[in-house]
Amino acid sequence: MTYCVGLRLDHGLVFMSDTRTNAGVDNISTFRKMTSWEKPGERVVTLMTAGNLATTQAVISLLDERMKAAADRSSTIYEAPSMFQVARLVGQTLREVIADNVDSGMRGDTTFNATILLGGQIKGSEPRLFLIYPEGNFIEASADNPYFQIGETKYGRPILVRAFDPSMSFEQAVKLLLVSFDSTIKANLGVDLPLDLQVYSTDSFKLGNTSRIERTDPYFETISNGWGNALKLAFDSLPDFSFSDD
Amino acid sequence: MTYCVGLRLDHGLVFMSDTRTNAGVDNISTFRKMTSWEKPGERVVTLMTAGNLATTQAVISLLDERMKAAADRSSTIYEAPSMFQVARLVGQTLREVIADNVDSGMRGDTTFNATILLGGQIKGSEPRLFLIYPEGNFIEASADNPYFQIGETKYGRPILVRAFDPSMSFEQAVKLLLVSFDSTIKANLGVDLPLDLQVYSTDSFKLGNTSRIERTDPYFETISNGWGNALKLAFDSLPDFSFSDD
Repeated sequence: MTYCVGLRLDHGLVFMSDTRTNAGVDNISTFRKMTSWEKPGERVVTLMTAGNLATTQAVISLLDERMKAAADRSSTIYEAPSMFQVARLVGQTLREVIADNVDSGMRGDTTFNATILLGGQIKGSEPRLFLIYPEGNFIEASADNPYFQIGETKYGRPILVRAFDPSMSFEQAVKLLLVSFDSTIKANLGVDLPLDLQVYSTDSFKLGNTSRIERTDPYFETISNGWGNALKLAFDSLPDFSFSDD
Repeated sequence: MTYCVGLRLDHGLVFMSDTRTNAGVDNISTFRKMTSWEKPGERVVTLMTAGNLATTQAVISLLDERMKAAADRSSTIYEAPSMFQVARLVGQTLREVIADNVDSGMRGDTTFNATILLGGQIKGSEPRLFLIYPEGNFIEASADNPYFQIGETKYGRPILVRAFDPSMSFEQAVKLLLVSFDSTIKANLGVDLPLDLQVYSTDSFKLGNTSRIERTDPYFETISNGWGNALKLAFDSLPDFSFSDD
């Protein structure tokens, strides 16, 4: 499993992904699920993947190779005229890879499916954030739905629903993401540290802070321990139920 | 979908279930998913179901009919010598109903599966809590794992993991369950009020408080609104992330 979240804030985008991949509980590894491209001054694109690792790695490799090949550079992440066209390109590539595997008659215990979160900004337009389905089509984040999650989304959703605010600072957004990831990691073996973090500040047209948060990261420990205590205090602050009869 | 939780506290058992059933989002109804039997002074048994409604209703009807039939009363919920034997009986009945449907060649978009939470106490033994699988086998709650959830379990799990304490009072336990249910209801259309609540106090050998919590219940509203604010305060009480460079 996997857990990735992309937030669309008023002043930029924040991406976080875990690194746990597994084929059964006895076969686990660490893989980066976040990839970024930048053309300073013009465009920044960040992509996170959930699903079959062979599929998602093939998608990234294909996107990379096309950028290096001389011909047909217009349909690459570095040349596409808008984030919408980048999303189409990525969606098409994803669908091709999945179809390739299925058409060749491969069979597996799991499907070859994958889902992708894509965000970034290209000069001339606002930052945009997309959720791309295995079928290659996609939806875009909006004021009503300003964040997307992929992978193991349920455990970490309630805190996003309650505490997300598009005007929050990057520092607060990272705190929110760490609480959401910590709740997921505590409940599910398929999601684990280290976590990759990528920040993009609107109209900067360069990658912002890029970090990897390790298990021993003191701030993560502060949040993980502190959140348990803060939750208990929050819980105690509410009035207890009282039985009318009994 | 469905959400049911059974808690094993030091001084008794607490059960809560929602009442939403649905076959698609355009076909929803309210059904009670909790059933209790008591023989005052000797035994109390409570059962909650998640899964195919036809299956779970058939299981309850079969268990009820057998108790009314004269012959073979020894293998009924009212006569079984232990909670373990009650769990076997319920598991067997569940497996029979599912097998019946499958054997008869019925096909549906969904499976006929169901999962059951069973708890209670029979004189001569402690209160016990079981999770019964569609295959008819089951596991029992223990000090390491003192509660079970069935149905749509993920949204409401983090708060249980963090705040459950087997020494908590019934009043605190109901508060905890309402927070867990509220988090689930806010995130998932398949779980909804009214909620059914059943409390059992160890060695009382009679049903404790039995209530239905409606959408307009003032205490539920207090918890639902108060929890959002309490969470935000808890979140604000943690230190913000700080970027080392950037």
